[in-house]
Amino acid sequence: MKTQDLYQAYSTRMQKIADVKSASAVLQWDQETHMPPRGAHFRGQQISTLSEISHELATEASFGVLLQSLAAKEDLGKNEKRNILRSLEDYERSKKYTASFVRELSGQVNKTFHAWLEARKQNAFPVFEPELAKLVDLKKQEADLLGYDVHPYNALLDEFEKGSTVDLLDKSFDHLLPQLKELLQKIAAAPQVQDDFLHQHFPKQQQWDWGLYLLKQLHFDFESGRQDISEHPFSISFSASDVRVTTRVDENDFANMTWSCIHEAGHALYEQGLLAEYYGLPLGEACSYSIHESQSRLWENNVGRSLGFWKHYFPELQKHFPEQLGRLGLEDFYKGINKVQSSMVRTEADEITYHFHVFIRYQLEKKLVEGSLKTREIPEFWGAQYKELLGVEVKEDKRGSLQDVHWSHGSFGYFPTYSLGSFYAAQFFEEAKKQMPALEDEISKGQVINLLQWLRTEIHEKGRFHTSEELCREVTGKTLDVSYFVNSLLYKYKSIYTL
Amino acid sequence: MKTQDLYQAYSTRMQKIADVKSASAVLQWDQETHMPPRGAHFRGQQISTLSEISHELATEASFGVLLQSLAAKEDLGKNEKRNILRSLEDYERSKKYTASFVRELSGQVNKTFHAWLEARKQNAFPVFEPELAKLVDLKKQEADLLGYDVHPYNALLDEFEKGSTVDLLDKSFDHLLPQLKELLQKIAAAPQVQDDFLHQHFPKQQQWDWGLYLLKQLHFDFESGRQDISEHPFSISFSASDVRVTTRVDENDFANMTWSCIHEAGHALYEQGLLAEYYGLPLGEACSYSIHESQSRLWENNVGRSLGFWKHYFPELQKHFPEQLGRLGLEDFYKGINKVQSSMVRTEADEITYHFHVFIRYQLEKKLVEGSLKTREIPEFWGAQYKELLGVEVKEDKRGSLQDVHWSHGSFGYFPTYSLGSFYAAQFFEEAKKQMPALEDEISKGQVINLLQWLRTEIHEKGRFHTSEELCREVTGKTLDVSYFVNSLLYKYKSIYTL
Repeated sequence: MKTQDLYQAYSTRMQKIADVKSASAVLQWDQETHMPPRGAHFRGQQISTLSEISHELATEASFGVLLQSLAAKEDLGKNEKRNILRSLEDYERSKKYTASFVRELSGQVNKTFHAWLEARKQNAFPVFEPELAKLVDLKKQEADLLGYDVHPYNALLDEFEKGSTVDLLDKSFDHLLPQLKELLQKIAAAPQVQDDFLHQHFPKQQQWDWGLYLLKQLHFDFESGRQDISEHPFSISFSASDVRVTTRVDENDFANMTWSCIHEAGHALYEQGLLAEYYGLPLGEACSYSIHESQSRLWENNVGRSLGFWKHYFPELQKHFPEQLGRLGLEDFYKGINKVQSSMVRTEADEITYHFHVFIRYQLEKKLVEGSLKTREIPEFWGAQYKELLGVEVKEDKRGSLQDVHWSHGSFGYFPTYSLGSFYAAQFFEEAKKQMPALEDEISKGQVINLLQWLRTEIHEKGRFHTSEELCREVTGKTLDVSYFVNSLLYKYKSIYTL
Repeated sequence: MKTQDLYQAYSTRMQKIADVKSASAVLQWDQETHMPPRGAHFRGQQISTLSEISHELATEASFGVLLQSLAAKEDLGKNEKRNILRSLEDYERSKKYTASFVRELSGQVNKTFHAWLEARKQNAFPVFEPELAKLVDLKKQEADLLGYDVHPYNALLDEFEKGSTVDLLDKSFDHLLPQLKELLQKIAAAPQVQDDFLHQHFPKQQQWDWGLYLLKQLHFDFESGRQDISEHPFSISFSASDVRVTTRVDENDFANMTWSCIHEAGHALYEQGLLAEYYGLPLGEACSYSIHESQSRLWENNVGRSLGFWKHYFPELQKHFPEQLGRLGLEDFYKGINKVQSSMVRTEADEITYHFHVFIRYQLEKKLVEGSLKTREIPEFWGAQYKELLGVEVKEDKRGSLQDVHWSHGSFGYFPTYSLGSFYAAQFFEEAKKQMPALEDEISKGQVINLLQWLRTEIHEKGRFHTSEELCREVTGKTLDVSYFVNSLLYKYKSIYTL
């Protein structure tokens, strides 16, 4: 068979898998946005069936043979070769899972998720713990199935961040945390900024309109996407030309919707920027979780919490909410939206304390997986760490170790990608400013199209050609260097808190 | 293997097929209600892939062997036996299609649909005709593949209405049409009723609220369903506990939304009334197209256009629209909403002329399939029939032979089920009144729960146990008798037009 015919067969199979996965994504999106309550039971079953079908299609032995034979071909272009390489990596990783293990894991995830829901209702970690313990055991088995060097957590990290390791993460946090601690101490000693204005009454419809306005300003393409309401904001893609974002509106907390809109827009712009010609193929997929997060955080923080951005948009915002914000000054607005304050809940954290939340979860996951911490010891460990690192007293499980859904989904190794995302974002943004000297000036005029175009070319359109680290080197000339992130924070907060 | 284990394997496979079909239905629903415009391309591909997968699952040879061996078992209950019988019928029908024919047909349907869209834009049947001609050829081949007695159209009818034949339909129409013609002549000679009040301005949001109110009154279960807006109203089900209806709002035509809401609610109540324990199995599916339509029409016409129903709801309606309807009398409202007037467009037709629209399409399909009419002769035949039967001059293709989407979907044999639906509805409603002497009194108090409960027990919960004709005999003690329909019209219009 000719190489091009084999490649065509590969591409057809990959698109078929993408079709099934996208269908499953539509069902999940509907579940979170529109589904009537009693639809849940069969919807769960429908999503499981689609997962099973896409898993079968992706792991069929004959497909492995096809990938192997294509991997040996010389007469493929660079991009085709890279698609095959990535697909083969995925295939070989998937094949390590036995069918019985996949079933057992998915059954346990289901039980653990329901235990988590119930535990939150009762505000009691012990309701969650027995199921979580069983799930952690399965995750250890998974690490063994997958194989690893040095630390079993590396095997799990690899699912979310190919090439990341305990060693690399430890080094990053070791470099970062002492400096953040020092910064936090200085901020604590300085007069606190005010953000009361965020907690006035902001009517739902007006916030919704403001959110849509912001999405349009950021060039979210409404011909290829839409926004809806859900309990927790998320973004999801069914193809580069159908990308959905969701948000929620809290009438007494203006910050909630605005920056979640910008954050999800960042994810969505990445998905809308993937090349449709590679639909279903690795080059048509996002590079990694951390690079995805770098896009959401770059827009949310580096752009969306900058003074320049609000130089242009604060007057617009005042037009939307003259009563609430008409008398507020830009400087005070800027300081308020960047207020630093230790808190118990990760998703409510500022740009600095956020990474202590992540670090605590990372420590904990590592210890659970290596067996040096038992699941029943989680609340104690959690409380002690929050006390030590953030100085806060965790008074209830609901806002403590039960606050995140991730573990109940079986996601161990996911949290670190949130911090990595911020680190990459800072390094990318610094590079963008270097390459486009007028960028900050443009942003302060509300023009972000050149930034978006740069991200499209440098990051989005490359798909999964590179790993995160390769991409970082490709874009910035260096591997990940957390100093960019630290320095940007030092610079920013020095002026906000006049340190 | 034990019979129960075999049956379990059968049930698992059937549920898997239902999961994939339901997923496809979610994608179609989203496509018509929420999808951004550029999502269409990959959405089409995703839906095709799911159809292909469900077709493969349903026609796999090993599944056929399983069905055959279950069909030979004695130790199954009555319901289990019926499930197997129906599934085997479906399987054997599906197996008659070769894979290459399915591909060719679906490719031609796609081309024909796009030609139809373009033809409507240009208001020119000749743009549609060449693709339609090819599709008709394929439908003739399909009739040959399926096999038939007497007339090839019977093979196609069978897809939508098992057991229906040209002979039976001809007899029904022969009995019906002369009487309807006579009635129309009498009505034409009587003073016309007024319906101008329907064409005032009815604001969108208020119509929407009124529609939701009506759905609640009809016991549409919003815990197991929801309503959205789409260009053409439809209902669709993802399980008995997730049934969606859609509507459209025309601010200058009150009738448009109200009776489409009631019509779609009728379909949806049927789906919500199917037994969840039979999800994926024939006994958990609707009996047939005509019985489905009998439910929508019973609610829309026999209930929703009756004087009794509006005795209760017209005062409610006046509260919703005091400005538009506050000074109108109930009798005038009732007459207006039942105005009889020949028109060019089927979906705008009244209860009498509607069936001439269906009859014309039925004649035409029969002739196309038997080869006595060429596709290029359609507009002429269409015009002549509309002139002769309805006395209207068809002036443009868009509102003539291009008005319906059905043929472009390859649906030949579908239209007759619309008329059959009305006939069954009249017979069922007559039986309901006989069995529940208080029914009309209840309806005039706005109480329809006993009627719904009766339909649930007599029709919905039986699923596909019976064919349409068997069900009709089961429910009313007689096979379909079009006199019930004719008499109900004679009785109704005698009083409206004082004939």
